[in-house]
Amino acid sequence: MHQVRIGIIGVGSMGNSHAKYLQANEIKDASLTAVLDNSEEKVKWLKENLKESVKVFSDEDAFFESGLVDAVIIATPHYDHASLAIKAFEYGLHVLSEKPAGVYTKQVREMNEAAEKSGKVFSIMYNQRTNPLYQKVRDLIQAGELGEIRRINWLITNWYRSQSYYDSGGWRATWSGEGGGVLINQCPHQLDLWQWMTGMMPTRMRAFCNFGKYRDIEVEDDVTAYAEYENGATGVFITTTGEAPGTNRLEITGDQGKVVIENGELDFWRLRVSEPQFNREYKGGFGAPECWKVDVPISGAETAHRGITQNFVHAILEGASLIAHGEEGIKGLMLSNAMHLSTWTDDWVEFPLDENLYYELLQEKIASSTSDKCTKSIPLNVEGTH
Amino acid sequence: MHQVRIGIIGVGSMGNSHAKYLQANEIKDASLTAVLDNSEEKVKWLKENLKESVKVFSDEDAFFESGLVDAVIIATPHYDHASLAIKAFEYGLHVLSEKPAGVYTKQVREMNEAAEKSGKVFSIMYNQRTNPLYQKVRDLIQAGELGEIRRINWLITNWYRSQSYYDSGGWRATWSGEGGGVLINQCPHQLDLWQWMTGMMPTRMRAFCNFGKYRDIEVEDDVTAYAEYENGATGVFITTTGEAPGTNRLEITGDQGKVVIENGELDFWRLRVSEPQFNREYKGGFGAPECWKVDVPISGAETAHRGITQNFVHAILEGASLIAHGEEGIKGLMLSNAMHLSTWTDDWVEFPLDENLYYELLQEKIASSTSDKCTKSIPLNVEGTH
Repeated sequence: MHQVRIGIIGVGSMGNSHAKYLQANEIKDASLTAVLDNSEEKVKWLKENLKESVKVFSDEDAFFESGLVDAVIIATPHYDHASLAIKAFEYGLHVLSEKPAGVYTKQVREMNEAAEKSGKVFSIMYNQRTNPLYQKVRDLIQAGELGEIRRINWLITNWYRSQSYYDSGGWRATWSGEGGGVLINQCPHQLDLWQWMTGMMPTRMRAFCNFGKYRDIEVEDDVTAYAEYENGATGVFITTTGEAPGTNRLEITGDQGKVVIENGELDFWRLRVSEPQFNREYKGGFGAPECWKVDVPISGAETAHRGITQNFVHAILEGASLIAHGEEGIKGLMLSNAMHLSTWTDDWVEFPLDENLYYELLQEKIASSTSDKCTKSIPLNVEGTH
Repeated sequence: MHQVRIGIIGVGSMGNSHAKYLQANEIKDASLTAVLDNSEEKVKWLKENLKESVKVFSDEDAFFESGLVDAVIIATPHYDHASLAIKAFEYGLHVLSEKPAGVYTKQVREMNEAAEKSGKVFSIMYNQRTNPLYQKVRDLIQAGELGEIRRINWLITNWYRSQSYYDSGGWRATWSGEGGGVLINQCPHQLDLWQWMTGMMPTRMRAFCNFGKYRDIEVEDDVTAYAEYENGATGVFITTTGEAPGTNRLEITGDQGKVVIENGELDFWRLRVSEPQFNREYKGGFGAPECWKVDVPISGAETAHRGITQNFVHAILEGASLIAHGEEGIKGLMLSNAMHLSTWTDDWVEFPLDENLYYELLQEKIASSTSDKCTKSIPLNVEGTH
């Protein structure tokens, strides 16, 4: 194979965005050959707006049986990612799933089992892993430059969403349609980066979700979560869609230094000797370890969605290692599921999460969903979003 | 009275600092006339180092009966603030107490009752209330410039203290000697400012204190606390003495804007229309309220301890209003007590705090204190601390 023929499943906001850059041949060795959407209105619009070489399907089986695609990008509402991915693997197709990989970790485990059985490539659209700032933080941590991690503090409140946004898609911000709010829709990237940069998952978590606090929605739009790690580190993750202007500030402290990302800049401080060593040797009153502010070069551009799609294509054609393997879809999602579960049970959640309990309680939320939102589903302009 | 004769009770680190500026006549209409300390070694040192006009007492009753003072500054270990203040009021003296006013809120309530009965002035050394940055935040909030408060996030981890610091005074960082750690010794200012700037106390709190995590001490040296308010606002307060380099970053968001204080600078953003109004009127997808970054003039210098002492003197002589009235000693302390209590009970704490439960559990901690710290108590150089 010299060229990967890609089909997009679900052409809402994100699917449309993927279609655009694929149609424009911005991904080397790949072409957009088919799209699938179950909305008649959308299918009509796609036929009018896509190149003629792209076949538009409204029937799922016809799409899979067409033989027109080697790989799919799944950009449907989250709940459908799992069944569509599993079906694609059964058809011998490679799969790139939009984030979140699924709504609950059981789903993503099944997706990975299907991927393994098929031997095909499975990747997740964790496009923010291509951001050089977060790559550098990961690099600093993994190389030990920060020392032992002690505290992670992420204030990520720049997800402003109006009521009109929530009203724009019938599946949005419902337990039955989306399986969560800001955690499942806006924050999967940060939740993934949190575990990816540090290489750590908590031992337990206590979280406080507020459901429909700022908007007429049934899911969470305001979250504060506290995590504890095996090495004694703690973490706080705060997010909301209700605030303006928001903040995106990540701070990670280790026993050898500190890193902060805010306003698109990375600041790095490094202790001359580690804090524990200073503490052992110092005999005075108010002294502290000598600290150096270090300018760290940040190289490369954020390749974003295109970067992940290109890497997916390279993985298929040349066996390149994936920036975000499908197995990694579970970890960030487990953080998100744990935040719901801790709130629902008003108690600690131990890791790894009790997947069955989460699944059961989620089903209860779905069953008692009182959502009567309009089902008008229009593609939003997603430029400038992530 | 044209001149307030001040006595200092307890001449450790802070008492010594107060003695210096009073001796240097830096407080208008006030003079240092006496000091009291129960350490023989300290008394010897004081006699050698203070001006001859300052009488040095080691006997408490002799000090109170001397007739040499109109007002006292209490700078002993925290537990003794209450009994000494009450005694001073009984002697008809005005009282300025170091922070924290006491170790548990019952104590401070009794102090205030004694103050009221005596009719004398009672103030707390909340010197950071004189910081123009925090004054401006209070001003912005109280004037409604931020709108309804939604989130308060204070990351205050720049309290680095080595083991040698903790070993420098036998009372330090023990339940019996100090009644707490970073919350009771380092953070009373921030806990006070938190409630003073916002004018709000939580309805409930869930906190996670770690005791002796970084140092060989029995009290907390690492804290994360989550608070909920009646208007739906939430707050997170994070502190430790174990990290370097630390951070001091306060962010407060309202439905009309946001303010951040970090690195000694105040940043203020204001929405052109309030968030709720924008949300009601906006019909698009990803839009957000128009936001203005506003340069706010910050005027005046931080007068710090001298400022509070001068204000105390003016209150005595001219009835000036107090920057920090004794009654205000309860609120910040209640936040601190609630953080302990929530950790000890591993549960929510409802406000106002169950003072009796807190007192009982604190007594248990004191009784089971295994502290065998050395009792060498040397004044530390406190320059640059607060």
